[in-house]
Amino acid sequence: MSLLAVGTLAFDDIETPHGRAEMVVGGACTYIALAASYFVQPVQLVSVVGDDFPESTLDDLRSRGVDLQGLQIMEGKKSFYWAGKYHRDLNSRDTLDTQLNVLADFNPIVPPAFRKPDFLMLGNLTPQIQMQVIDQLEERPKLIALDTMNFWMNSAWDDLMKVIKRIDMLIINDEEARQLSGEHALLKAANIIHEMGPKYVVIKKGEHGALLFHEGKTFFAAGLPLAEVIDPTGAGDTFAGGFMGALAARGDLSFAGMKRAIIYGSAMASFCVEKFSTERLADLDENLIRERVEQFAELVNFQV
Amino acid sequence: MSLLAVGTLAFDDIETPHGRAEMVVGGACTYIALAASYFVQPVQLVSVVGDDFPESTLDDLRSRGVDLQGLQIMEGKKSFYWAGKYHRDLNSRDTLDTQLNVLADFNPIVPPAFRKPDFLMLGNLTPQIQMQVIDQLEERPKLIALDTMNFWMNSAWDDLMKVIKRIDMLIINDEEARQLSGEHALLKAANIIHEMGPKYVVIKKGEHGALLFHEGKTFFAAGLPLAEVIDPTGAGDTFAGGFMGALAARGDLSFAGMKRAIIYGSAMASFCVEKFSTERLADLDENLIRERVEQFAELVNFQV
Repeated sequence: MSLLAVGTLAFDDIETPHGRAEMVVGGACTYIALAASYFVQPVQLVSVVGDDFPESTLDDLRSRGVDLQGLQIMEGKKSFYWAGKYHRDLNSRDTLDTQLNVLADFNPIVPPAFRKPDFLMLGNLTPQIQMQVIDQLEERPKLIALDTMNFWMNSAWDDLMKVIKRIDMLIINDEEARQLSGEHALLKAANIIHEMGPKYVVIKKGEHGALLFHEGKTFFAAGLPLAEVIDPTGAGDTFAGGFMGALAARGDLSFAGMKRAIIYGSAMASFCVEKFSTERLADLDENLIRERVEQFAELVNFQV
Repeated sequence: MSLLAVGTLAFDDIETPHGRAEMVVGGACTYIALAASYFVQPVQLVSVVGDDFPESTLDDLRSRGVDLQGLQIMEGKKSFYWAGKYHRDLNSRDTLDTQLNVLADFNPIVPPAFRKPDFLMLGNLTPQIQMQVIDQLEERPKLIALDTMNFWMNSAWDDLMKVIKRIDMLIINDEEARQLSGEHALLKAANIIHEMGPKYVVIKKGEHGALLFHEGKTFFAAGLPLAEVIDPTGAGDTFAGGFMGALAARGDLSFAGMKRAIIYGSAMASFCVEKFSTERLADLDENLIRERVEQFAELVNFQV
């Protein structure tokens, strides 16, 4: 099965209670592609960078089976840049700076070889760009998942509603779900979001885990208690990438298959936060992932 | 098996985003005893009220198998009173008023018939009173659990450390665990608390569930997503009461037995928040509880 991943490749300046990382590689699609690459190949990537983006990172992605045909490299321009500072609880953060750079006039081009993906993950971007990607596909994927954020709810509501209507799964965090639905209780929020289009709603709660809602059924994937969270940046994207990768690897779209994939996504996210940037996602293997998934199973296992 | 429960019987004024409840019955021990009474009898209660406390509530407790021999009724005095207002997220609240009344000079007397309990639940009270109860027992219970709060960490640290050293299980919320240990990560916090004495540490995370730590093992009981949380007051005490009741009913102190009891405690807490005060805890039965426990199992069930 193939997975098409769309989103940013970026530079981040990150400050957490554990330290700083300056001009490190970030971006939603970097995390999505890296996480998914442990499960499925090829991961087809559509994105844009400036000529400042490190060739070594692109080589790493290629060596992990990520197909970069859809990556535009804009000469003389700079890559997307984000700077943020995490609060002590690591569950909330302030954005200190955002420089769109190449994103300002990004026109996504899906190469012909990428136009029939089995699965599509639309990372957080303007709803219009997300829509343009869907419009270029020649066949509808088995599953389209989309991530978005408060910013687009405030600035591009109508476009967001249009693209949300065309997807199968919305992946957002709890505060975003509340804003999107106008409901505080996540169970009710999910029902309202279902009515906007997506038959699957995934609500990420950071360290508190993630919820999957589908046709009246609810699944909860716990957050693994970690001794140390070094940098939460990219955890949500890593979760989405691991989830979509695991889903694409098996192609099992039953609720049981979805639950399984959510656990793999959670496991990948739990690795992501152990180091700054994408560092921890670079040195994993099947056994480490399997062991981590078993920890998730053990964590919630009980008999009544 | 017998369970001795110590804590407050009180009046509460409660304001939540869903409305107000004025001068309703509350108090840690009311919730503990009610929740536990669905699993084990007798529940032996040690507490104090004024002559204003409703006889109907005492009759309800008696009819549920709660033994009130250890309840002191102080003529001419008023019962403990607490007023609080919940924030919109229902996970945090402000205390608006506290009137100690009969608690101001409460001298707990454990009746002779209560001095050999199989299980002891010490609800939130001054550490000194909690200690006085332990001192009056003639045999050490199979398990002593204790709840406390930030207030005692700030005002009675030395007494708190003394009583914590003598218990088996500390049941506190996440913020309290962080303050007590000085550690933000709950996994590390639990390890520091283990060193203070308790070999079991339960950390309640409100709507986000609860964690049990014991000898390097971790269990997580999810919070059930609810369509409506009307009033969180007493949820933590109801959790503790349901947990201790379920534990005492089986007497299984293995880790598996502990996990099972935690789920029963979580189920009882999920009922508690559905109505104001103790209203929802009055009309449950074995089938409703069993169904709710099955929902908890279904919520986190997955196959890898």
